[in-house]
Amino acid sequence: MKNQLNVFKNKKILIAGGLGFIGSNLARKLIELEANVQIIDSLIPEGGGNFFNVAGIEHKTDIQIADVRNETQMRTLAEGLDYLFNLAGQTSHLYSMKDPYADLELNGRAQLSILEASRKSGSRPKIIFASTRQIYGRPQVLPVTETHPLNPIDINGVHKLAAERYHQIYGETYGIRFCILRLTNTYGPRMRIRDSRQTFLGHWIHEILNGNEFPIFGDGRQFRDFTFVEDVVEALLLTAARCEADGEIFNLGGDQMTLEELARLLVDLNQSGSYRFVPFPEDLKAIDIGNYCADTSKIQSALGWSAKTNLKEGLLQTLHFFKSNLQPYQAEQKIDAAL
Amino acid sequence: MKNQLNVFKNKKILIAGGLGFIGSNLARKLIELEANVQIIDSLIPEGGGNFFNVAGIEHKTDIQIADVRNETQMRTLAEGLDYLFNLAGQTSHLYSMKDPYADLELNGRAQLSILEASRKSGSRPKIIFASTRQIYGRPQVLPVTETHPLNPIDINGVHKLAAERYHQIYGETYGIRFCILRLTNTYGPRMRIRDSRQTFLGHWIHEILNGNEFPIFGDGRQFRDFTFVEDVVEALLLTAARCEADGEIFNLGGDQMTLEELARLLVDLNQSGSYRFVPFPEDLKAIDIGNYCADTSKIQSALGWSAKTNLKEGLLQTLHFFKSNLQPYQAEQKIDAAL
Repeated sequence: MKNQLNVFKNKKILIAGGLGFIGSNLARKLIELEANVQIIDSLIPEGGGNFFNVAGIEHKTDIQIADVRNETQMRTLAEGLDYLFNLAGQTSHLYSMKDPYADLELNGRAQLSILEASRKSGSRPKIIFASTRQIYGRPQVLPVTETHPLNPIDINGVHKLAAERYHQIYGETYGIRFCILRLTNTYGPRMRIRDSRQTFLGHWIHEILNGNEFPIFGDGRQFRDFTFVEDVVEALLLTAARCEADGEIFNLGGDQMTLEELARLLVDLNQSGSYRFVPFPEDLKAIDIGNYCADTSKIQSALGWSAKTNLKEGLLQTLHFFKSNLQPYQAEQKIDAAL
Repeated sequence: MKNQLNVFKNKKILIAGGLGFIGSNLARKLIELEANVQIIDSLIPEGGGNFFNVAGIEHKTDIQIADVRNETQMRTLAEGLDYLFNLAGQTSHLYSMKDPYADLELNGRAQLSILEASRKSGSRPKIIFASTRQIYGRPQVLPVTETHPLNPIDINGVHKLAAERYHQIYGETYGIRFCILRLTNTYGPRMRIRDSRQTFLGHWIHEILNGNEFPIFGDGRQFRDFTFVEDVVEALLLTAARCEADGEIFNLGGDQMTLEELARLLVDLNQSGSYRFVPFPEDLKAIDIGNYCADTSKIQSALGWSAKTNLKEGLLQTLHFFKSNLQPYQAEQKIDAAL
């Protein structure tokens, strides 16, 4: 792995959404690897962008507070790039139902703008696009492979699927190099915790660290697949570095666990805290996908990637981070919740 | 059929895109059936809207020149409706590659606005959505059934597929009744002929009636599936009238023919004219789907629909119409071409 990542040294790299959760962890790693890192982030209130995420590296990266939908600006940024990591977007399924137009803008138009800017640039960077397990909809079989039917059941899933297709079409028609990763619940330091927009687990961590009981929706038996952010960053770098990944779509995934088991583990690791079962809110129930776990054998056999950090280790690191840095991630007000 | 269509008498019906090709033919039929017909059309230059399409019925329908993307206005129109025929949109595949943002607006945001207005209305009309064979991409097997994989290869196809999903999600989540028809090359009186935005056949008719040679792209052996507009109108009405169609997706299709056979037939029926073979333009070739014909057995067995008008009859009626009414459909300038 280490040798493969030498490829990024002195390379010009843009991270769209680079002040966000995954983007900022990726930026830190790329700076370690001596890459020339630029960040574009619009800091929209719905996103995970937070200046504290780049504390300590802010002088080692060029940060543009701008909207990727501004294609003119994107074209300037795309010039001369080697790699473009596309982590911009809004991630809340519930919010996408409440304001489908905003989701269309942030997950549809934004991706078109990035692709248009890239194809018109002289450098034609390779693009790594962060997609989501949400495009599968309710799994018909578990674990879910990349060939599972695509039946998104919320507007966010529809637009993320459209964005995957954009990449494929720009690849086919204009020769843009790309790789798509379908992420499932990602967690770790620098995640958005002040509400459940990125994942319910963020909200749980916020509540437990503030001494509040946190809610489990439903009976707690539902299970999800959790990937620690460091593992996701490794997958992003690996798919960028390796040409076998060009044009491919890969699932990511890590540890599977039921919500109740996860709640217990969180309380144990925190050495205090409590949770309560609450009925599934109606609006969330309508778009809930049920149980999910990913089959990650494709990326494992193609690139040798598998998640290295188990939930216990990952949660410990996450709790440790937020215990030392709670204030910059505190909620001002809660907006909504999404599983 | 006739008895089934009595259901529309005195019903309140909105046709989005009602000044366009299919919309205006549908409006004429619904007025015959004594329905209360409203039309909304934005007359965007990229669309098929043309005031001449409603010549003679303009006083029997309420015509709003407005944009369906204005949700406030759509909500006013949606109130009290029984049926909403959604034929708004832009249809050019090539144009969607040239301006993907405009396609996102006209085929993405527009459909969201119609669905949002409908779900917020008290009446909750049944929606019939005109989709396209383009969402299948390059056929893997022929004839294409509704279960064929969905692999759109141009931006227009991506957005039409997204719009299908919107309807399914609004059906599942909010109980909106809908039916989706996947149209293939539709032709007939009132089609847009001044360019190839609706279908290349429109452009051929324009050229032959103006005494110009018309072009066949490629070797002419490619085949397509052609449906006469009256048959499409019948399918739209049937799927609206029949509750077995609720939540369903149906292919439409009619006569299959190669481009060269079609060109010969057109020259024969017109009793004059000529065509030439020209190399496939590069930008069109990149998004060409190859041969296509639809399997329409699903709608045939569910609703008893099949195309009644063969290409010879349909083309004769089309030529007759445009010979008598050429001027209102003449090109001012050619914009682009799409198969």
